[in-house]
Amino acid sequence: GDPEQYAKVEKAVHDLLDAFNVNWEDPNYTDTPKRVAKAYMEYWANGYAREAEDEVTVFPNSSGSEDLVMVKDMKFYSMCSHHLAPFTGYGAIAYMADENLLGLSKLGRILDIYARRFQLQERIGAQTADKIMQLLRPKGVMVVLYDVEHLCMSSRGVKLHEASTTTVATRGIFKEDAQLRAEVMSLINK
Amino acid sequence: GDPEQYAKVEKAVHDLLDAFNVNWEDPNYTDTPKRVAKAYMEYWANGYAREAEDEVTVFPNSSGSEDLVMVKDMKFYSMCSHHLAPFTGYGAIAYMADENLLGLSKLGRILDIYARRFQLQERIGAQTADKIMQLLRPKGVMVVLYDVEHLCMSSRGVKLHEASTTTVATRGIFKEDAQLRAEVMSLINK
Amino acid sequence: GDPEQYAKVEKAVHDLLDAFNVNWEDPNYTDTPKRVAKAYMEYWANGYAREAEDEVTVFPNSSGSEDLVMVKDMKFYSMCSHHLAPFTGYGAIAYMADENLLGLSKLGRILDIYARRFQLQERIGAQTADKIMQLLRPKGVMVVLYDVEHLCMSSRGVKLHEASTTTVATRGIFKEDAQLRAEVMSLINK
Amino acid sequence: GDPEQYAKVEKAVHDLLDAFNVNWEDPNYTDTPKRVAKAYMEYWANGYAREAEDEVTVFPNSSGSEDLVMVKDMKFYSMCSHHLAPFTGYGAIAYMADENLLGLSKLGRILDIYARRFQLQERIGAQTADKIMQLLRPKGVMVVLYDVEHLCMSSRGVKLHEASTTTVATRGIFKEDAQLRAEVMSLINK
Amino acid sequence: GDPEQYAKVEKAVHDLLDAFNVNWEDPNYTDTPKRVAKAYMEYWANGYAREAEDEVTVFPNSSGSEDLVMVKDMKFYSMCSHHLAPFTGYGAIAYMADENLLGLSKLGRILDIYARRFQLQERIGAQTADKIMQLLRPKGVMVVLYDVEHLCMSSRGVKLHEASTTTVATRGIFKEDAQLRAEVMSLINK
Amino acid sequence: GDPEQYAKVEKAVHDLLDAFNVNWEDPNYTDTPKRVAKAYMEYWANGYAREAEDEVTVFPNSSGSEDLVMVKDMKFYSMCSHHLAPFTGYGAIAYMADENLLGLSKLGRILDIYARRFQLQERIGAQTADKIMQLLRPKGVMVVLYDVEHLCMSSRGVKLHEASTTTVATRGIFKEDAQLRAEVMSLINK
Amino acid sequence: GDPEQYAKVEKAVHDLLDAFNVNWEDPNYTDTPKRVAKAYMEYWANGYAREAEDEVTVFPNSSGSEDLVMVKDMKFYSMCSHHLAPFTGYGAIAYMADENLLGLSKLGRILDIYARRFQLQERIGAQTADKIMQLLRPKGVMVVLYDVEHLCMSSRGVKLHEASTTTVATRGIFKEDAQLRAEVMSLINK
Amino acid sequence: GDPEQYAKVEKAVHDLLDAFNVNWEDPNYTDTPKRVAKAYMEYWANGYAREAEDEVTVFPNSSGSEDLVMVKDMKFYSMCSHHLAPFTGYGAIAYMADENLLGLSKLGRILDIYARRFQLQERIGAQTADKIMQLLRPKGVMVVLYDVEHLCMSSRGVKLHEASTTTVATRGIFKEDAQLRAEVMSLINK
Amino acid sequence: GDPEQYAKVEKAVHDLLDAFNVNWEDPNYTDTPKRVAKAYMEYWANGYAREAEDEVTVFPNSSGSEDLVMVKDMKFYSMCSHHLAPFTGYGAIAYMADENLLGLSKLGRILDIYARRFQLQERIGAQTADKIMQLLRPKGVMVVLYDVEHLCMSSRGVKLHEASTTTVATRGIFKEDAQLRAEVMSLINK
Amino acid sequence: GDPEQYAKVEKAVHDLLDAFNVNWEDPNYTDTPKRVAKAYMEYWANGYAREAEDEVTVFPNSSGSEDLVMVKDMKFYSMCSHHLAPFTGYGAIAYMADENLLGLSKLGRILDIYARRFQLQERIGAQTADKIMQLLRPKGVMVVLYDVEHLCMSSRGVKLHEASTTTVATRGIFKEDAQLRAEVMSLINK
Repeated sequence: GDPEQYAKVEKAVHDLLDAFNVNWEDPNYTDTPKRVAKAYMEYWANGYAREAEDEVTVFPNSSGSEDLVMVKDMKFYSMCSHHLAPFTGYGAIAYMADENLLGLSKLGRILDIYARRFQLQERIGAQTADKIMQLLRPKGVMVVLYDVEHLCMSSRGVKLHEASTTTVATRGIFKEDAQLRAEVMSLINK
Repeated sequence: GDPEQYAKVEKAVHDLLDAFNVNWEDPNYTDTPKRVAKAYMEYWANGYAREAEDEVTVFPNSSGSEDLVMVKDMKFYSMCSHHLAPFTGYGAIAYMADENLLGLSKLGRILDIYARRFQLQERIGAQTADKIMQLLRPKGVMVVLYDVEHLCMSSRGVKLHEASTTTVATRGIFKEDAQLRAEVMSLINK
Repeated sequence: GDPEQYAKVEKAVHDLLDAFNVNWEDPNYTDTPKRVAKAYMEYWANGYAREAEDEVTVFPNSSGSEDLVMVKDMKFYSMCSHHLAPFTGYGAIAYMADENLLGLSKLGRILDIYARRFQLQERIGAQTADKIMQLLRPKGVMVVLYDVEHLCMSSRGVKLHEASTTTVATRGIFKEDAQLRAEVMSLINK
Repeated sequence: GDPEQYAKVEKAVHDLLDAFNVNWEDPNYTDTPKRVAKAYMEYWANGYAREAEDEVTVFPNSSGSEDLVMVKDMKFYSMCSHHLAPFTGYGAIAYMADENLLGLSKLGRILDIYARRFQLQERIGAQTADKIMQLLRPKGVMVVLYDVEHLCMSSRGVKLHEASTTTVATRGIFKEDAQLRAEVMSLINK
Repeated sequence: GDPEQYAKVEKAVHDLLDAFNVNWEDPNYTDTPKRVAKAYMEYWANGYAREAEDEVTVFPNSSGSEDLVMVKDMKFYSMCSHHLAPFTGYGAIAYMADENLLGLSKLGRILDIYARRFQLQERIGAQTADKIMQLLRPKGVMVVLYDVEHLCMSSRGVKLHEASTTTVATRGIFKEDAQLRAEVMSLINK
Repeated sequence: GDPEQYAKVEKAVHDLLDAFNVNWEDPNYTDTPKRVAKAYMEYWANGYAREAEDEVTVFPNSSGSEDLVMVKDMKFYSMCSHHLAPFTGYGAIAYMADENLLGLSKLGRILDIYARRFQLQERIGAQTADKIMQLLRPKGVMVVLYDVEHLCMSSRGVKLHEASTTTVATRGIFKEDAQLRAEVMSLINK
Repeated sequence: GDPEQYAKVEKAVHDLLDAFNVNWEDPNYTDTPKRVAKAYMEYWANGYAREAEDEVTVFPNSSGSEDLVMVKDMKFYSMCSHHLAPFTGYGAIAYMADENLLGLSKLGRILDIYARRFQLQERIGAQTADKIMQLLRPKGVMVVLYDVEHLCMSSRGVKLHEASTTTVATRGIFKEDAQLRAEVMSLINK
Repeated sequence: GDPEQYAKVEKAVHDLLDAFNVNWEDPNYTDTPKRVAKAYMEYWANGYAREAEDEVTVFPNSSGSEDLVMVKDMKFYSMCSHHLAPFTGYGAIAYMADENLLGLSKLGRILDIYARRFQLQERIGAQTADKIMQLLRPKGVMVVLYDVEHLCMSSRGVKLHEASTTTVATRGIFKEDAQLRAEVMSLINK
Repeated sequence: GDPEQYAKVEKAVHDLLDAFNVNWEDPNYTDTPKRVAKAYMEYWANGYAREAEDEVTVFPNSSGSEDLVMVKDMKFYSMCSHHLAPFTGYGAIAYMADENLLGLSKLGRILDIYARRFQLQERIGAQTADKIMQLLRPKGVMVVLYDVEHLCMSSRGVKLHEASTTTVATRGIFKEDAQLRAEVMSLINK
Repeated sequence: GDPEQYAKVEKAVHDLLDAFNVNWEDPNYTDTPKRVAKAYMEYWANGYAREAEDEVTVFPNSSGSEDLVMVKDMKFYSMCSHHLAPFTGYGAIAYMADENLLGLSKLGRILDIYARRFQLQERIGAQTADKIMQLLRPKGVMVVLYDVEHLCMSSRGVKLHEASTTTVATRGIFKEDAQLRAEVMSLINK
């Protein structure tokens, strides 16, 4: 990010802490605004500055295999757009290849790009699925985000701190073929 | 709750304890009627004073996604209308959105409102499902209440203290589509 | 039970122990026949003296809900008619209500009545299912008895001490609808 | 309990429900006061009408063994004297015999007698330990109450619904010998 | 066992069933007395007809090793002398060899001989430990019987069906050396 | 909190989001600053406005018991002073009573008061322990904070997303008596 | 087995050990040929001398129930015909009764008879299923052998020591009805 | 492998380490190139020098059984062709026999031959399935590679170190029959 | 092994099978003697032809560290000298280095050399510990063999098929320092 | 790293693959040398280019607390100096503070710096402990590396693929105080 953006974030964080009258002499607070700005720019909201197209290369599927490929238990980190509170969980992405293949670690990278923004969980899944359809043109894709803990839900009023949220986004043949979805569920639960 | 209601509950609790001749000098009993009245009014039976409409806002589903959304492992607390004994467990609520979306924590809040009364487990699930259909108008909703322990069952006669009760309420497409119900089951068991 | 029955059981137990020449002076044996007679009459075989109709009341299903209700992990105790050896395990009972409802703890009570006799596991499930159909007239009922250890099997010859027996009894729509049975299985495994 | 006590409890429960304007026509409430009175008298507060001495017989320890005896995972039910809310958990009782022995099921019975009152968890453990010292005169006794969930804690304000309370009461050699306590801990954790 | 003993047991069982008016025409009862007599003689009470000395051979400890030897998770079956109800669980036997060694399966055999009688759990452990001291003359022996479920406790009154009983018998150096006992505990819990 | 403080927090959050050019028309962002301000004031940083003395009452220890009392698995939520990132985990608090006793839920409340600030994990434990020593004057207290996930650690650079942090604060006899600490550890691991 | 067969096995074992020049003076080898011959005749290969017909009696199914009966987790021991190495695992047998019933322990006995030979896993399942069809004439039978470890596979070359083999044999309606097979799978996995 | 190939690998490894200026005097590095060359030739890339036909013999299926055979949890080791980083996991292979049978350990051997090369996970599954179809001519085969950790994914940038990859290759009837695939999934998850 | 030894083993196996009249025409038996001879020579009894000294090299401990090193969960395979039945389990070896170090995989290799013979479990541990003391001269060594299943015990008479055997061999400082042994136990149980 | 180093690594990898005659036209190999060079420089061996001093800042311990601080389950990645094979596992670092404190994530960072080299596991623990002693000057430090899988051990000859290695490095008071080490062990096992 550019220095101006850094400065804006830093100032906002300074003002936030100031509202609680923190002791700026305490070395545990002095550099906090700087540290938080860095964290937002480099980690928590770095998805705004990245494009999936730049990080992903697509290969021809020389073997022409139509078998199922899935990566699961991909930890992701995001911040909810309603409360700026983190929500974290796991993603599983399955696809049925057609003419193209994707390096296995790229599935996690696309998920990471959409997660590292101020988001809704439903939207991360949908954007990830749509982007894979666009870049890879597989027969179908299924994105399941599970064991997701929303801090805005767990840390506030009602007693929901064990609750977790699951969202499912399906595209292509996964939308039509319930049996295929059941297989992916079974493999995730393995 | 109004002071009169407090007073009534407090007196009833005082009479109940008095039936067992508790020692009112013992500081462990002296303020118990007051404490219990407060607990009923503020926690255990606070659902009578709340309306789902007041606590829930509905958003337009701008992305138009029809994918599945589920929150599970939402702890709930209720009291059975037959024995005034607590029953507690977990709720999972899944819905297939149409034109509206709900904040994720609101699902738990609606469940909480119906649970915090003198209830039947079957009725909590049905009322929760019906209210979500009414407020959100999704394609369908499914409410599963599971791992529910009824103290009236576990703490009394027959040897049922490991038993748990499960109820399922389905509305809309979840009523017709067994495959869809199976997917929700699979995600709950994840 | 009547005193005569007590006396008969007590004498039979006395004769059984006598066949092994136990030392009747040892206080660990002296009152055993009395204790065993009491145990048979009050616990192990008390099902002969009870009728489900006497212990169960049926309510009209005012809400008219047709959703699924299940109680699982109900521990039961029985004695097999072939070896008088105990067999114990868990029962799950699911039903789809029609015009009547049953208090949740009554499901366990009906199971208990049929288990507390000299029985076959297959017969307990069938009798429980039949009685619920008769008393409640639901759309269907499913009784699964699982994790059942038969001491006659585990404690004798072949190496079966980890083995467990499962029986399934279905009535009404559960007999026809395999998908519905699968849902119950899934909820039991939850 | 005597009929007068029943009537008092029944009236108190009726008044409590009345404070919430329940519909007395609804068959789910009509008999509730009667049912609750019965539950208090026969189960939840039946400890007031029982004495450990009446239910427990002590045998001479003919073998003179000084080895360790422990029963664990004994489920108990109690109601806290501060909020009349149930608290339930497990008890383990270990003793080192001297001249007397106790039937194994009696350990659970003594615990049950002190639990079935309006209690503090700390007091149940202490009373159980003291009574065993008095009746059995062992070299020592150790009572651990664990995995105890206090509904007054879990169902109200702060987010403590996963919390559990443990109390340890030691008498005789268990008070002095830390190594012996460690052995009991190890066997409980087995 | 001799035919007379068989006949006695068979008659006692016949009388027991007769007290409950079983239908002797039902093939599930007809041969039950014969079957039960056989089961008592050949399995449940066969320990009366066996002597550890006959089944166990002792070898010189040629390597002179003083290291620890333990067999654990040995399932055993017994019947309690108070209620003739089965109790089953696991035994672990550890010893520190001196001049003699024992075949590993013999540890389980000695335990089996003392369990297959009408017993107290405390006494099985003590007798097993004493017999090993006598036959093997090790530096010490430790017998732990754990995860023991007493049907007389679980299947009757108080809610103890999850409870299990543990007894520990120590002889020789295991009596004195608490650290050594802790090691055995740790290995059992492995 | 007072309105001015609300306004300050709200403005800071608005500026933070503005640095990332969020679309203020999108209803998912419009009210976010208001919502976040409310969350900070009412939940995440509400510990600044609370004093343990106001929420805790101390009782005389009438039974004079010196046995161990522990509450564990108390979920807590805090925000680290270095990155304003949440860290959450569980607390266990054990004490050895002297002349005073504390209501069981108050242990969690004191922990909550110190956690709901911008904190270091080490400091929460120390402040909680010190406050209990001051209010209760027990023989000693031990505070263990465990399974604590620091989002600042898990969500940023090095691969630490499975890591958890444990801190132990001991006061009074727990500082001197290693055996007593071992017992608490053993009970936490139960 | 006859003495001649014993002698042959004993000699073969003697020759096998002799090929490795074991020290026949060492008491750990002296009687090994005798012991091994006994083990083969009485346990490992005793299936050759037994017939299912001799050990199994069939009863008329008086209740006419067509519900499912299954015994699972039956440990079995066999030796593979290719390497004489043991293979062990668990069997589950499910059947849908028609006019006959089988005592529950007989299912394990038939499996044991076919396992206690030099075998292929595939053949044990098939022979067990065929024999049950022949003796019992049920509507169908399903035999699943699972968690089977073949020592010839685990103890030799390639790194397969965690591998396990599963075989499924279906007869009658289980061959045609995939839904029914799925129910059995679900109950095995319970 | 031939000496020239050894020498080439050894030199390459020497050059690789040299790029990091390792201290060749340190005995922990001196022979590393030799050791690594040996490891590549004998283990990590030994699949290039092997042919499935040489290691596998096919038998006629004399019993003509068409039941399912599966070996699962076969650990495999491979190196990815993109980063030369190891990836390891488990394979399950199921087939429905026709006229031929395969020794159970041969399934693992074919998998091993294709894994011990520089590979893609997708390709190992496809090659294994194709080779079994060619050698055995079964009705169908299904190869599932699961719990596969790719070090190139876990040890580098994005936070994927808990992620695992699953690939499924189906041939013959497993391609068409979704129900059959579900059975295999269920047995793998057992 | 030399051809003569092969031939001897092969003949012995042929005679063993012949005692059971196997059908030598059946291709599942024809080559079995050859296969078994190979298995004994190359795997099951290959320890007789190996010396630890040939497979292990010792390095100077340049860093002079005296910290603890342990390898655990090393699967081993052996055959018991009493019944020629396999016994398998896991080994953990811990040592406290002095002037020498050992490559980590060598610990498993020494264990393997002593296991791959006709053995006693007690002797494998002792021989492994002694050899490490001799080759490495550490301050001490501890060898724990655990979760060991003896087929001679599990597959024959008494009901011991869940039983496992643990042996502990200590040398040097591990013999004297009980605290150090406890640390190793704790790390094995991790 | 500098470009020359990149080029050297790239060439070495090219030569290694060339020894196996990979098809350089196949897009799965073409860029592999480049990718591997990048992976070594940026991830697998990046520890050579980093110094703990540059990444770690030390704070004064203002509260003067001497309580225990531990971070555990820190995943680390390294490559063994003997076979260039990866080894991965978890680290726990505990220290007893004196005058200085360390940011919690810095413990993982120091471990990472020493792991990302060609290493011995024993040396990583020792170097990490020494560096923390030097930078922080605590009363003592303890570094446990556990659940460490060495691919050189698991993927090659002997059957060690389930084996894991544990090393313990202690400095300061952890070296002397066995009780303190036991507490850390207990907290790691939590």
